[in-house]
Amino acid sequence: MNALRILGLDTSGKVASCALLDTQQDCLLGEQSVYTRRGHSQIILPLCERLLADCALTLEDVDCYAVSTGPGSYTGLRIGIAAVQGLAMARGTPCIGVSTLEAMASRLFGADDILAVMHAREDKFYCARFSCGGDRMERRTPDELQSAAQIAGMTGQTKARILLVGDGCGQLMEQLEAMEHAGEMLRPVPPILRLQSAAGVCRCAAQYIAANKELPAAADLTASYLQNVNITKKG
Amino acid sequence: MNALRILGLDTSGKVASCALLDTQQDCLLGEQSVYTRRGHSQIILPLCERLLADCALTLEDVDCYAVSTGPGSYTGLRIGIAAVQGLAMARGTPCIGVSTLEAMASRLFGADDILAVMHAREDKFYCARFSCGGDRMERRTPDELQSAAQIAGMTGQTKARILLVGDGCGQLMEQLEAMEHAGEMLRPVPPILRLQSAAGVCRCAAQYIAANKELPAAADLTASYLQNVNITKKG
Repeated sequence: MNALRILGLDTSGKVASCALLDTQQDCLLGEQSVYTRRGHSQIILPLCERLLADCALTLEDVDCYAVSTGPGSYTGLRIGIAAVQGLAMARGTPCIGVSTLEAMASRLFGADDILAVMHAREDKFYCARFSCGGDRMERRTPDELQSAAQIAGMTGQTKARILLVGDGCGQLMEQLEAMEHAGEMLRPVPPILRLQSAAGVCRCAAQYIAANKELPAAADLTASYLQNVNITKKG
Repeated sequence: MNALRILGLDTSGKVASCALLDTQQDCLLGEQSVYTRRGHSQIILPLCERLLADCALTLEDVDCYAVSTGPGSYTGLRIGIAAVQGLAMARGTPCIGVSTLEAMASRLFGADDILAVMHAREDKFYCARFSCGGDRMERRTPDELQSAAQIAGMTGQTKARILLVGDGCGQLMEQLEAMEHAGEMLRPVPPILRLQSAAGVCRCAAQYIAANKELPAAADLTASYLQNVNITKKG
């Protein structure tokens, strides 16, 4: 597969984000992201249309779609996956599902130890550890649902600093501050790098393409919630 | 100065980019960037308008402007500075000028040694070295115009890797490959982090605000070309 242009989306949290990566030119052609309280369903497809128009391209120029498939908000993930499936199915374009946590971590190039966290509920966080110290990004732990105390235990054994990324940074640090000696090695990244990132989704997809000959079809995308979804509770 | 919202622009190279950082919420409210061959004069102000509209904000909600003042393309820098001066003068809003190289480097949080490069002409590059290893970004060398051979000499003495960022990455690495043992410690960052960044401009401006009580006025902005501009040559 010689996927030249990857259109990536992320609607897993409060940021609606899309980006277009040209892997042959080695160039990010454009990126649009909005921290929004509006529904992602109203905003993500218009964002994609604008992004392509800005680049003087159309949907026909997209060789591969990529979308963050979780963890994240139930509704947000459904919207992102449905949008990408709609765009891709029309032309049989392949689609790559990317972990939201992995996409966030992938912007911290050069960092040996990264913890990506999203707030799930109360003292629970979705989290995973990565290393971007080498040329390829490496995953150290699977995407998991853990308590702040479990994260304190896991990160308390390291002697070197761990970069903390993700929209759960603030809430995790607050909860760790209440525990003795917890989170001392964690260093939250600045706000410009902290939130969900469609550019990161594109980078993870490009790495997937480089390592795999066959790419998944749109119908194969599945969301990863990491916890039981109980819709009735929300109503 | 309690600057809550910083609107940053970068038009110094082929990317037109704007971003809005909320320093009090510690949140990047939005970002738009386009790798474009169209003139920046046609694209940058509409991008800013869209960004604010996406965030349900107006120019009245901007507490401070920031713009990359060079090095970079003569016309691009003039357009970015003029746009920001126009926006800021209407309300007397302060404006912070940021080095293009510093803004690019500021996205590599956690990296101890960073070289930012932009291609100037032939074998000449604008470059500067930074460290983002601590909580604040630190500058190691001033913005300079150097040849590929000078850069090879400067970076050849280090034993640790240097992350290479900027739109001159590719051209510099090509030129260094022709020299023996040159550029061995340089590791170009992936395309999603390589180009000019208005989010980085915002981060540098936030750091300036944190360290300075008085902020510059729009009229004080000056471009930094790092070489004699000879317009007649271009005609």
